[in-house]
Amino acid sequence: MRLHIQNQKKDTGFAISLAQWQAGVHRHPDMASINVTVCNDDAGFERALEDAEVLVAWVDDIKERFPRGALPNAAPRLRILYYTSAGIDRLAPFDWLPDSVSLLNNSGIHSDKAGEFGIMALLMLQNRMPELIEAQRAKAWTQVFGSTLRGRTLGVVGMGSLGSGVARRARAFGMRVIGIRNGHEPHPDCDETVSVDHLDSALPRVDDLLLACPLTSATRNLLSRERIALLKKGARVVNIARGPVWDQDAICDALDAEHLDSAFTDVAVPEPPDPSHRLWRTRGLIVTPHISADDLTTYSDDTVDLIMANLRADREGKPLPNLVDLSKGY
Amino acid sequence: MRLHIQNQKKDTGFAISLAQWQAGVHRHPDMASINVTVCNDDAGFERALEDAEVLVAWVDDIKERFPRGALPNAAPRLRILYYTSAGIDRLAPFDWLPDSVSLLNNSGIHSDKAGEFGIMALLMLQNRMPELIEAQRAKAWTQVFGSTLRGRTLGVVGMGSLGSGVARRARAFGMRVIGIRNGHEPHPDCDETVSVDHLDSALPRVDDLLLACPLTSATRNLLSRERIALLKKGARVVNIARGPVWDQDAICDALDAEHLDSAFTDVAVPEPPDPSHRLWRTRGLIVTPHISADDLTTYSDDTVDLIMANLRADREGKPLPNLVDLSKGY
Repeated sequence: MRLHIQNQKKDTGFAISLAQWQAGVHRHPDMASINVTVCNDDAGFERALEDAEVLVAWVDDIKERFPRGALPNAAPRLRILYYTSAGIDRLAPFDWLPDSVSLLNNSGIHSDKAGEFGIMALLMLQNRMPELIEAQRAKAWTQVFGSTLRGRTLGVVGMGSLGSGVARRARAFGMRVIGIRNGHEPHPDCDETVSVDHLDSALPRVDDLLLACPLTSATRNLLSRERIALLKKGARVVNIARGPVWDQDAICDALDAEHLDSAFTDVAVPEPPDPSHRLWRTRGLIVTPHISADDLTTYSDDTVDLIMANLRADREGKPLPNLVDLSKGY
Repeated sequence: MRLHIQNQKKDTGFAISLAQWQAGVHRHPDMASINVTVCNDDAGFERALEDAEVLVAWVDDIKERFPRGALPNAAPRLRILYYTSAGIDRLAPFDWLPDSVSLLNNSGIHSDKAGEFGIMALLMLQNRMPELIEAQRAKAWTQVFGSTLRGRTLGVVGMGSLGSGVARRARAFGMRVIGIRNGHEPHPDCDETVSVDHLDSALPRVDDLLLACPLTSATRNLLSRERIALLKKGARVVNIARGPVWDQDAICDALDAEHLDSAFTDVAVPEPPDPSHRLWRTRGLIVTPHISADDLTTYSDDTVDLIMANLRADREGKPLPNLVDLSKGY
């Protein structure tokens, strides 16, 4: 099998090197027969597309290389496109993708990192770090006392890899977790699951809300201005999903009006926000630059393992674990 | 039995009201016979000292009321002085305390709050929040990627209520925990325990170090300039103990020199530090104003429960759980 890994031109720390692939083969010897090439330049990419059956690549290269209509001709043997990100919203709409090519995402490798980050964000709000950070900035020894997460109710929107990573840890801290998802099957990391169709009934019951769902047409503006108003006064919201999942301006308004106690976002609209954007300086809001889920020390190795698990399933004629359902958008 | 609760004159949120005491009696009906008074003024305090056998009070009132030589005459029937703080360093030296009076501290009620705060501090450093806070301040979308606590080695100095609260949670995050304490008996929340006499051999082995010991003559300057140099380059240090336990100036120097990656302190020398103090603005250092262990929503009720547990032991002639060993200082 011919597999090509196209790394980004700029070294971002997320590249997969040939040595890392070979280390993966050492862990998974049944992958030794794969003929792999790795590059980060245009000429090598062009050459690889002639015979690659599997392509591993990142958003910019995919969008640039495959405008609508380019496939299948631009890569005649391509069967599997493995996208090294979990969220595929930046590849939508999918009118450039022919039926002959299966799109796989990188969902699954972010759970530990995002799980720890999500708990950190909840702890920071619970311990009133937004005020304490301001106090340090002002060189003021202003005591404000927080409380524990224990006993609070957390709503988690999206019970995939990120959401379950946070939910599992939140329960270990003694929180009650309501998972909000498509369908309402029980989830082992939740005390209760609620279908997203009944989101409105769950919102008034949570002390903290964490957004961890993919961005799709169904989740765009899911936490709308009207729904933010359904949250308890003093509630806290964390967004490790995508900026358009909440009404960002309404969140800022709710913080200004002190309807929300505080919030933490790792995403923004747009990214990056202009320095003049209110997001940077809204009372009670902590902003980080889309780094919550990515652990550079493990990212490439874990990605290699996940690619190989999918290739093994493909070889054995089993369903591909990371196959994207284009109709759902994740 | 006559018990008096002297609350601080200023309402700090930590007062124990008569209603809270009575709620405690409802939880512990065997305490119903205690004759309790509660006040926060001088006249009431003076009156109560005439016949109080047990006094519950806070640092300022104790120091003001009982200069050396004042006891036992100032409170002729006093047997038990219950100090509503865990650390008793602010009452030392103990030359004002006659043998007839047992000093009890409030150790035990801070474990959950401090445990969550300590993990938050470790997560914030691991996720590079010092840089990310600076980036938000500068309105800069500067991506820096952290990693997980999983697999790192944490040293915890002091395995009492605070230290074990952090250690237990750290292990749930997959950290390896070395407990550093008096003696080296195994501790259920540690993978390994090391006697403080062998601290120097433990320091080069830890990725993160958390200080959670009482301040005593033995722990003053425990993390000295020389010992800070024994830590790995890139190590991180969290102080939820007392400022004098580390060499604060040497910590700032080690951060400036980038020998330490980052640090988090909830304590300072002096408290509060002057606005011109370097502590406020040292690179990589997060400062909070001595709030890590105190949960206002539970403090008074938990204190009442702990007082009653000690009074029950006293009545039954058992050792008092919170009796301070004055020779050790905790």
